[in-house]
Amino acid sequence: MTSKNTLQSRLDYVFCRPVLLRRAMTHRSHSAPHNEKFEFLGDAVLNCVISALIFQRFPALKEGDLSRIRAHLVKQQTLCQIAQTLELAKDLRLGEGELRSGGRKRPSMLADALEALFGAIYLDGGFSAARAAIERLYAPILDHLDLKMSGKDAKTCLQELLQGRKIALPEYTVITTRGAAHRQQFEIQCTVPSLEIQARGRGASRRAAEQEAAARALAEIKRS
Amino acid sequence: MTSKNTLQSRLDYVFCRPVLLRRAMTHRSHSAPHNEKFEFLGDAVLNCVISALIFQRFPALKEGDLSRIRAHLVKQQTLCQIAQTLELAKDLRLGEGELRSGGRKRPSMLADALEALFGAIYLDGGFSAARAAIERLYAPILDHLDLKMSGKDAKTCLQELLQGRKIALPEYTVITTRGAAHRQQFEIQCTVPSLEIQARGRGASRRAAEQEAAARALAEIKRS
Repeated sequence: MTSKNTLQSRLDYVFCRPVLLRRAMTHRSHSAPHNEKFEFLGDAVLNCVISALIFQRFPALKEGDLSRIRAHLVKQQTLCQIAQTLELAKDLRLGEGELRSGGRKRPSMLADALEALFGAIYLDGGFSAARAAIERLYAPILDHLDLKMSGKDAKTCLQELLQGRKIALPEYTVITTRGAAHRQQFEIQCTVPSLEIQARGRGASRRAAEQEAAARALAEIKRS
Repeated sequence: MTSKNTLQSRLDYVFCRPVLLRRAMTHRSHSAPHNEKFEFLGDAVLNCVISALIFQRFPALKEGDLSRIRAHLVKQQTLCQIAQTLELAKDLRLGEGELRSGGRKRPSMLADALEALFGAIYLDGGFSAARAAIERLYAPILDHLDLKMSGKDAKTCLQELLQGRKIALPEYTVITTRGAAHRQQFEIQCTVPSLEIQARGRGASRRAAEQEAAARALAEIKRS
Protein backbone atom coordinates (compact mmCIF):
# COMPACT_ATOMS: atom_id res chain seq x y z
CA MET A 1 0.00 0.00 0.00
CA THR A 2 1.33 3.42 -0.90
CA SER A 3 0.00 6.80 0.13
CA LYS A 4 -0.18 9.72 -2.27
CA ASN A 5 3.04 11.25 -1.12
CA THR A 6 5.49 8.43 -1.63
CA LEU A 7 7.91 8.17 -4.50
CA GLN A 8 6.35 4.84 -5.45
CA SER A 9 2.94 6.44 -5.92
CA ARG A 10 4.37 9.37 -7.88
CA LEU A 11 6.22 6.79 -9.99
CA ASP A 12 3.09 4.63 -10.29
CA TYR A 13 5.20 1.57 -9.54
CA VAL A 14 5.21 -0.49 -6.37
CA PHE A 15 8.40 -2.38 -5.60
CA CYS A 16 8.22 -6.08 -4.65
CA ARG A 17 11.62 -5.53 -3.02
CA PRO A 18 11.64 -2.01 -1.52
CA VAL A 19 15.28 -2.54 -0.58
CA LEU A 20 16.09 -1.99 -4.26
CA LEU A 21 14.33 1.38 -4.24
CA ARG A 22 16.19 2.32 -1.08
CA ARG A 23 19.51 1.47 -2.65
CA ALA A 24 18.66 3.43 -5.82
CA MET A 25 18.11 6.50 -3.66
CA THR A 26 21.34 6.05 -1.68
CA HIS A 27 24.29 8.15 -2.81
CA ARG A 28 27.78 6.82 -2.10
CA SER A 29 28.33 9.72 0.30
CA HIS A 30 25.59 8.29 2.54
CA SER A 31 26.33 4.60 3.00
CA ALA A 32 26.83 1.29 1.25
CA PRO A 33 25.28 -0.39 -0.66
CA HIS A 34 24.88 2.74 -2.77
CA ASN A 35 23.41 3.40 -6.20
CA GLU A 36 26.47 3.54 -8.48
CA LYS A 37 26.04 0.10 -9.98
CA PHE A 38 22.29 0.57 -10.34
CA GLU A 39 23.09 3.69 -12.31
CA PHE A 40 25.35 1.64 -14.61
CA LEU A 41 22.47 -0.76 -15.26
CA GLY A 42 19.72 1.88 -15.40
CA ASP A 43 21.61 3.95 -17.95
CA ALA A 44 21.67 0.95 -20.31
CA VAL A 45 18.02 0.09 -19.64
CA LEU A 46 16.96 3.68 -20.31
CA ASN A 47 18.96 3.84 -23.52
CA CYS A 48 17.36 0.63 -24.74
CA VAL A 49 13.80 1.60 -23.84
CA ILE A 50 14.16 5.06 -25.39
CA SER A 51 15.66 3.56 -28.55
CA ALA A 52 12.73 1.17 -28.89
CA LEU A 53 10.18 3.90 -28.14
CA ILE A 54 11.45 6.36 -30.73
CA PHE A 55 12.14 3.60 -33.26
CA GLN A 56 8.44 2.76 -33.13
CA ARG A 57 7.16 6.32 -32.74
CA PHE A 58 9.07 7.91 -35.62
CA PRO A 59 8.99 5.29 -38.38
CA ALA A 60 9.92 7.79 -41.07
CA LEU A 61 13.12 8.99 -39.41
CA LYS A 62 16.57 7.82 -40.37
CA GLU A 63 19.18 6.39 -38.06
CA GLY A 64 21.00 9.71 -37.70
CA ASP A 65 17.86 11.55 -36.59
CA LEU A 66 16.92 8.78 -34.17
CA SER A 67 20.39 9.00 -32.63
CA ARG A 68 20.04 12.75 -32.27
CA ILE A 69 16.63 12.44 -30.58
CA ARG A 70 17.85 9.68 -28.29
CA ALA A 71 20.81 11.79 -27.22
CA HIS A 72 18.40 14.61 -26.37
CA LEU A 73 16.12 12.31 -24.37
CA VAL A 74 18.81 10.67 -22.23
CA LYS A 75 20.92 13.75 -21.55
CA GLN A 76 21.34 15.09 -18.04
CA GLN A 77 19.04 18.06 -18.56
CA THR A 78 16.11 15.88 -19.65
CA LEU A 79 16.70 13.38 -16.84
CA CYS A 80 16.84 16.25 -14.39
CA GLN A 81 13.53 17.61 -15.65
CA ILE A 82 11.89 14.20 -15.05
CA ALA A 83 13.54 13.90 -11.63
CA GLN A 84 12.01 17.24 -10.71
CA THR A 85 8.54 16.15 -11.84
CA LEU A 86 8.99 13.05 -9.69
CA GLU A 87 10.23 15.18 -6.76
CA LEU A 88 13.10 12.74 -6.52
CA ALA A 89 15.22 15.11 -4.45
CA LYS A 90 13.00 14.52 -1.40
CA ASP A 91 13.93 10.84 -1.32
CA LEU A 92 17.67 11.06 -1.93
CA ARG A 93 19.86 9.71 0.86
CA LEU A 94 23.00 11.83 0.93
CA GLY A 95 25.97 12.14 3.26
CA GLU A 96 26.40 15.20 5.48
CA GLY A 97 28.89 16.91 3.19
CA GLU A 98 26.69 16.51 0.13
CA LEU A 99 23.66 17.78 2.00
CA ARG A 100 25.51 20.89 3.14
CA SER A 101 26.83 21.67 -0.34
CA GLY A 102 23.36 21.47 -1.88
CA GLY A 103 23.78 18.00 -3.39
CA ARG A 104 20.05 17.43 -3.30
CA LYS A 105 19.58 20.00 -6.05
CA ARG A 106 22.62 19.19 -8.17
CA PRO A 107 21.53 18.15 -11.70
CA SER A 108 24.10 15.35 -11.98
CA MET A 109 22.96 13.95 -8.62
CA LEU A 110 19.31 13.92 -9.71
CA ALA A 111 20.04 12.47 -13.14
CA ASP A 112 22.20 9.69 -11.69
CA ALA A 113 19.57 8.81 -9.09
CA LEU A 114 16.87 8.64 -11.77
CA GLU A 115 18.99 6.24 -13.83
CA ALA A 116 19.61 4.18 -10.69
CA LEU A 117 15.85 4.12 -10.15
CA PHE A 118 15.32 2.67 -13.64
CA GLY A 119 17.96 0.05 -12.85
CA ALA A 120 16.14 -0.82 -9.64
CA ILE A 121 12.81 -1.20 -11.44
CA TYR A 122 14.49 -3.48 -14.00
CA LEU A 123 15.88 -5.66 -11.21
CA ASP A 124 12.56 -5.67 -9.37
CA GLY A 125 10.03 -6.12 -12.17
CA GLY A 126 12.02 -6.92 -15.30
CA PHE A 127 12.32 -5.12 -18.59
CA SER A 128 8.59 -4.66 -19.15
CA ALA A 129 8.15 -2.90 -15.81
CA ALA A 130 11.08 -0.61 -16.55
CA ARG A 131 9.79 0.08 -20.02
CA ALA A 132 6.32 0.94 -18.74
CA ALA A 133 7.66 3.30 -16.07
CA ILE A 134 10.01 5.04 -18.50
CA GLU A 135 7.22 5.34 -21.06
CA ARG A 136 4.92 6.96 -18.49
CA LEU A 137 7.56 9.42 -17.33
CA TYR A 138 8.60 10.34 -20.86
CA ALA A 139 5.07 10.62 -22.28
CA PRO A 140 4.79 14.41 -21.85
CA ILE A 141 8.28 14.91 -23.24
CA LEU A 142 7.65 12.67 -26.22
CA ASP A 143 4.37 14.40 -26.98
CA HIS A 144 6.11 17.74 -26.89
CA LEU A 145 8.92 16.30 -29.01
CA ASP A 146 6.41 15.28 -31.66
CA LEU A 147 5.48 18.94 -32.01
CA LYS A 148 9.08 20.11 -31.90
CA MET A 149 10.02 17.48 -34.45
CA SER A 150 7.17 18.54 -36.65
CA GLY A 151 8.37 22.12 -36.39
CA LYS A 152 11.69 20.80 -37.52
CA ASP A 153 11.42 18.29 -40.27
CA ALA A 154 7.91 16.89 -40.53
CA LYS A 155 7.91 17.93 -44.19
CA THR A 156 11.00 15.85 -44.81
CA CYS A 157 9.54 12.91 -42.86
CA LEU A 158 6.32 13.07 -44.83
CA GLN A 159 8.16 13.33 -48.13
CA GLU A 160 10.34 10.33 -47.30
CA LEU A 161 7.37 8.29 -46.15
CA LEU A 162 5.49 8.97 -49.38
CA GLN A 163 8.55 8.35 -51.55
CA GLY A 164 9.05 5.03 -49.75
CA ARG A 165 5.50 4.06 -50.72
CA LYS A 166 5.95 5.47 -54.23
CA ILE A 167 3.12 7.95 -53.67
CA ALA A 168 3.00 11.41 -55.29
CA LEU A 169 4.47 14.15 -53.05
CA PRO A 170 2.18 16.37 -50.94
CA GLU A 171 1.01 19.78 -52.05
CA TYR A 172 0.98 22.78 -49.73
CA THR A 173 -1.60 25.54 -50.31
CA VAL A 174 -2.07 28.80 -48.41
CA ILE A 175 -5.65 28.89 -47.12
CA THR A 176 -5.60 32.18 -45.23
CA THR A 177 -3.17 34.91 -44.26
CA ARG A 178 -4.25 37.10 -41.37
CA GLY A 179 -2.95 40.00 -39.32
CA ALA A 180 -0.62 42.94 -39.86
CA ALA A 181 2.75 42.36 -41.53
CA HIS A 182 4.71 41.98 -38.27
CA ARG A 183 2.15 39.62 -36.69
CA GLN A 184 0.97 37.54 -39.61
CA GLN A 185 -0.77 34.21 -39.11
CA PHE A 186 -0.66 31.66 -41.90
CA GLU A 187 -2.98 28.74 -42.47
CA ILE A 188 -1.66 26.11 -44.83
CA GLN A 189 -3.25 22.98 -46.16
CA CYS A 190 -1.19 19.89 -46.89
CA THR A 191 -2.86 17.59 -49.40
CA VAL A 192 -1.90 14.00 -50.25
CA PRO A 193 -4.44 13.27 -52.99
CA SER A 194 -3.87 9.54 -53.39
CA LEU A 195 -4.41 8.98 -49.66
CA GLU A 196 -7.31 11.44 -49.52
CA ILE A 197 -5.57 13.36 -46.77
CA GLN A 198 -6.07 17.09 -46.19
CA ALA A 199 -4.40 18.44 -43.08
CA ARG A 200 -4.15 22.06 -42.00
CA GLY A 201 -1.56 23.86 -39.94
CA ARG A 202 -1.16 27.39 -38.61
CA GLY A 203 1.92 29.36 -37.80
CA ALA A 204 3.57 32.74 -37.63
CA SER A 205 5.45 31.92 -40.83
CA ARG A 206 4.55 30.06 -43.95
CA ARG A 207 7.25 27.51 -43.10
CA ALA A 208 5.92 26.89 -39.57
CA ALA A 209 2.38 26.46 -40.84
CA GLU A 210 3.57 24.00 -43.49
CA GLN A 211 5.47 22.00 -40.90
CA GLU A 212 2.42 21.76 -38.67
CA ALA A 213 0.25 20.72 -41.58
CA ALA A 214 2.83 18.07 -42.58
CA ALA A 215 2.98 16.78 -38.99
CA ARG A 216 -0.79 16.39 -38.94
CA ALA A 217 -0.77 14.62 -42.29
CA LEU A 218 1.95 12.31 -40.97
CA ALA A 219 -0.10 11.54 -37.86
CA GLU A 220 -3.12 10.85 -40.04
CA ILE A 221 -1.15 8.39 -42.18
CA LYS A 222 0.22 6.61 -39.13
CA ARG A 223 -3.27 6.25 -37.67
CA SER A 224 -4.66 4.75 -40.88
CA MET B 1 10.54 -25.51 -39.57
CA THR B 2 14.23 -24.86 -40.02
CA SER B 3 16.89 -27.16 -41.39
CA LYS B 4 20.32 -27.45 -39.85
CA ASN B 5 21.95 -25.04 -42.23
CA THR B 6 19.83 -21.95 -41.83
CA LEU B 7 20.84 -18.92 -39.82
CA GLN B 8 17.73 -19.38 -37.68
CA SER B 9 18.84 -22.85 -36.63
CA ARG B 10 22.41 -21.72 -35.93
CA LEU B 11 20.90 -18.87 -33.94
CA ASP B 12 18.47 -21.23 -32.20
CA TYR B 13 15.69 -18.70 -32.77
CA VAL B 14 12.81 -18.96 -35.21
CA PHE B 15 11.31 -15.69 -36.40
CA CYS B 16 7.54 -15.21 -36.36
CA ARG B 17 8.12 -12.53 -39.00
CA PRO B 18 10.99 -13.70 -41.24
CA VAL B 19 10.80 -10.38 -43.06
CA LEU B 20 12.54 -8.86 -40.02
CA LEU B 21 15.43 -11.32 -40.32
CA ARG B 22 15.68 -10.55 -44.02
CA ARG B 23 15.87 -6.83 -43.34
CA ALA B 24 18.51 -7.34 -40.64
CA MET B 25 20.67 -9.11 -43.22
CA THR B 26 20.19 -6.44 -45.88
CA HIS B 27 22.98 -3.87 -46.22
CA ARG B 28 22.08 -0.46 -47.58
CA SER B 29 24.19 -1.19 -50.67
CA HIS B 30 21.74 -3.96 -51.59
CA SER B 31 18.25 -2.51 -51.35
CA ALA B 32 15.72 -0.82 -49.07
CA PRO B 33 14.47 -1.44 -46.45
CA HIS B 34 17.98 -2.06 -45.14
CA ASN B 35 19.38 -2.77 -41.70
CA GLU B 36 20.68 0.61 -40.51
CA LYS B 37 17.82 1.40 -38.18
CA PHE B 38 17.75 -2.17 -36.85
CA GLU B 39 21.41 -1.69 -36.00
CA PHE B 40 20.52 1.48 -34.05
CA LEU B 41 17.99 -0.51 -32.04
CA GLY B 42 20.07 -3.68 -31.71
CA ASP B 43 23.08 -1.79 -30.42
CA ALA B 44 20.96 -0.46 -27.54
CA VAL B 45 19.36 -3.85 -26.86
CA LEU B 46 22.77 -5.54 -26.79
CA ASN B 47 24.20 -2.92 -24.46
CA CYS B 48 21.28 -3.37 -22.09
CA VAL B 49 21.36 -7.18 -22.10
CA ILE B 50 25.14 -7.29 -21.61
CA SER B 51 24.89 -4.76 -18.78
CA ALA B 52 22.28 -6.88 -17.02
CA LEU B 53 24.21 -10.11 -17.62
CA ILE B 54 27.48 -8.86 -16.20
CA PHE B 55 25.75 -6.97 -13.39
CA GLN B 56 24.35 -10.29 -12.22
CA ARG B 57 27.36 -12.44 -13.07
CA PHE B 58 30.01 -10.34 -11.35
CA PRO B 59 28.34 -9.14 -8.15
CA ALA B 60 31.64 -8.23 -6.53
CA LEU B 61 32.81 -5.89 -9.30
CA LYS B 62 32.56 -2.13 -9.12
CA GLU B 63 30.95 0.13 -11.68
CA GLY B 64 34.26 0.97 -13.37
CA ASP B 65 35.14 -2.70 -13.90
CA LEU B 66 31.67 -3.48 -15.20
CA SER B 67 31.99 -0.62 -17.71
CA ARG B 68 35.36 -1.95 -18.84
CA ILE B 69 34.02 -5.48 -19.31
CA ARG B 70 30.93 -4.21 -21.12
CA ALA B 71 33.08 -2.19 -23.51
CA HIS B 72 35.09 -5.33 -24.24
CA LEU B 73 31.97 -7.40 -24.88
CA VAL B 74 30.24 -5.00 -27.25
CA LYS B 75 33.26 -3.90 -29.24
CA GLN B 76 33.55 -4.66 -32.93
CA GLN B 77 36.12 -7.41 -32.50
CA THR B 78 33.92 -9.39 -30.11
CA LEU B 79 30.83 -8.92 -32.27
CA CYS B 80 32.83 -10.05 -35.27
CA GLN B 81 33.94 -13.19 -33.44
CA ILE B 82 30.30 -14.07 -32.70
CA ALA B 83 29.26 -13.25 -36.28
CA GLN B 84 31.88 -15.72 -37.48
CA THR B 85 30.64 -18.45 -35.14
CA LEU B 86 27.16 -17.82 -36.53
CA GLU B 87 28.49 -17.85 -40.11
CA LEU B 88 26.57 -14.63 -40.59
CA ALA B 89 28.54 -13.68 -43.72
CA LYS B 90 26.73 -16.35 -45.73
CA ASP B 91 23.38 -14.64 -45.18
CA LEU B 92 24.38 -11.03 -45.79
CA ARG B 93 22.63 -9.31 -48.67
CA LEU B 94 25.13 -6.86 -50.19
CA GLY B 95 25.20 -4.71 -53.29
CA GLU B 96 27.50 -5.56 -56.21
CA GLY B 97 30.18 -3.07 -55.26
CA GLU B 98 30.36 -4.30 -51.66
CA LEU B 99 30.52 -7.92 -52.81
CA ARG B 100 33.40 -7.18 -55.15
CA SER B 101 35.37 -5.28 -52.53
CA GLY B 102 35.08 -8.14 -50.03
CA GLY B 103 32.33 -6.57 -47.91
CA ARG B 104 31.19 -9.98 -46.76
CA LYS B 105 34.33 -10.37 -44.69
CA ARG B 106 34.69 -6.81 -43.42
CA PRO B 107 34.59 -6.73 -39.60
CA SER B 108 32.43 -3.58 -39.43
CA MET B 109 29.94 -5.11 -41.85
CA LEU B 110 29.65 -8.29 -39.77
CA ALA B 111 29.42 -6.44 -36.45
CA ASP B 112 26.72 -4.09 -37.77
CA ALA B 113 24.69 -6.98 -39.17
CA LEU B 114 24.90 -8.84 -35.86
CA GLU B 115 23.58 -5.79 -34.01
CA ALA B 116 20.81 -5.46 -36.60
CA LEU B 117 20.00 -9.12 -35.98
CA PHE B 118 19.59 -8.43 -32.24
CA GLY B 119 17.30 -5.52 -33.12
CA ALA B 120 15.23 -7.80 -35.35
CA ILE B 121 14.87 -10.41 -32.60
CA TYR B 122 13.76 -7.69 -30.19
CA LEU B 123 11.10 -6.52 -32.65
CA ASP B 124 10.02 -10.09 -33.36
CA GLY B 125 10.02 -11.68 -29.93
CA GLY B 126 10.51 -8.89 -27.42
CA PHE B 127 13.23 -8.24 -24.90
CA SER B 128 13.22 -11.72 -23.39
CA ALA B 129 13.81 -13.35 -26.78
CA ALA B 130 16.67 -10.95 -27.52
CA ARG B 131 18.13 -11.51 -24.08
CA ALA B 132 17.99 -15.30 -24.46
CA ALA B 133 19.65 -15.21 -27.88
CA ILE B 134 22.39 -12.85 -26.75
CA GLU B 135 22.98 -14.93 -23.63
CA ARG B 136 23.37 -18.09 -25.72
CA LEU B 137 25.76 -16.47 -28.16
CA TYR B 138 27.84 -14.86 -25.43
CA ALA B 139 27.97 -17.91 -23.14
CA PRO B 140 31.37 -19.18 -24.39
CA ILE B 141 32.82 -15.67 -24.25
CA LEU B 142 31.48 -15.02 -20.76
CA ASP B 143 32.82 -18.36 -19.53
CA HIS B 144 36.21 -17.50 -20.96
CA LEU B 145 35.92 -14.05 -19.44
CA ASP B 146 35.31 -15.61 -16.04
CA LEU B 147 38.66 -17.33 -16.34
CA LYS B 148 40.37 -14.24 -17.73
CA MET B 149 38.87 -12.20 -14.93
CA SER B 150 40.06 -14.78 -12.47
CA GLY B 151 43.52 -14.56 -13.98
CA LYS B 152 43.22 -10.87 -13.42
CA ASP B 153 41.58 -10.11 -10.16
CA ALA B 154 39.60 -13.07 -8.84
CA LYS B 155 41.52 -12.75 -5.57
CA THR B 156 40.36 -9.16 -5.25
CA CYS B 157 36.78 -10.09 -6.18
CA LEU B 158 36.74 -12.88 -3.64
CA GLN B 159 38.22 -10.66 -0.95
CA GLU B 160 35.65 -7.93 -1.59
CA LEU B 161 32.80 -10.41 -1.62
CA LEU B 162 33.87 -11.86 1.73
CA GLN B 163 34.49 -8.43 3.25
CA GLY B 164 31.01 -7.41 2.11
CA ARG B 165 29.58 -10.37 4.03
CA LYS B 166 31.90 -9.75 6.99
CA ILE B 167 33.49 -13.17 6.57
CA ALA B 168 37.13 -13.92 7.40
CA LEU B 169 39.46 -13.61 4.38
CA PRO B 170 40.53 -16.71 2.44
CA GLU B 171 43.76 -18.57 3.04
CA TYR B 172 46.00 -19.76 0.22
CA THR B 173 48.18 -22.84 0.75
CA VAL B 174 50.67 -24.47 -1.60
CA ILE B 175 49.66 -28.09 -2.09
CA THR B 176 52.30 -29.24 -4.58
CA THR B 177 55.15 -27.80 -6.61
CA ARG B 178 56.26 -29.88 -9.56
CA GLY B 179 58.73 -29.77 -12.42
CA ALA B 180 62.14 -28.23 -13.02
CA ALA B 181 62.77 -24.61 -12.03
CA HIS B 182 61.99 -23.17 -15.47
CA ARG B 183 58.84 -25.23 -15.95
CA GLN B 184 57.35 -25.33 -12.47
CA GLN B 185 53.74 -26.17 -11.88
CA PHE B 186 52.03 -24.95 -8.72
CA GLU B 187 48.93 -26.29 -7.08
CA ILE B 188 47.32 -23.93 -4.57
CA GLN B 189 44.35 -24.41 -2.31
CA CYS B 190 42.06 -21.52 -1.44
CA THR B 191 40.17 -22.09 1.80
CA VAL B 192 37.22 -20.09 3.15
CA PRO B 193 36.68 -21.86 6.47
CA SER B 194 33.38 -20.26 7.48
CA LEU B 195 31.78 -21.26 4.16
CA GLU B 196 33.45 -24.69 4.17
CA ILE B 197 34.93 -23.97 0.75
CA GLN B 198 38.18 -25.53 -0.47
CA ALA B 199 39.03 -24.81 -4.07
CA ARG B 200 42.23 -25.70 -5.90
CA GLY B 201 43.95 -24.03 -8.80
CA ARG B 202 47.06 -24.80 -10.88
CA GLY B 203 49.37 -22.52 -12.74
CA ALA B 204 52.88 -21.88 -13.94
CA SER B 205 53.33 -19.36 -11.16
CA ARG B 206 52.17 -19.20 -7.61
CA ARG B 207 50.14 -16.11 -8.47
CA ALA B 208 48.36 -17.78 -11.42
CA ALA B 209 47.49 -20.82 -9.33
CA GLU B 210 46.13 -18.61 -6.54
CA GLN B 211 43.98 -16.69 -9.03
CA GLU B 212 42.54 -19.90 -10.44
CA ALA B 213 41.81 -21.21 -6.96
CA ALA B 214 40.15 -17.91 -6.02
CA ALA B 215 38.05 -18.00 -9.23
CA ARG B 216 36.85 -21.50 -8.36
CA ALA B 217 36.03 -20.48 -4.81
CA LEU B 218 34.08 -17.49 -6.19
CA ALA B 219 32.15 -19.74 -8.57
CA GLU B 220 31.40 -22.08 -5.68
CA ILE B 221 30.04 -19.22 -3.57
CA LYS B 222 27.88 -17.95 -6.42
CA ARG B 223 26.42 -21.43 -6.97
CA SER B 224 25.53 -21.85 -3.30
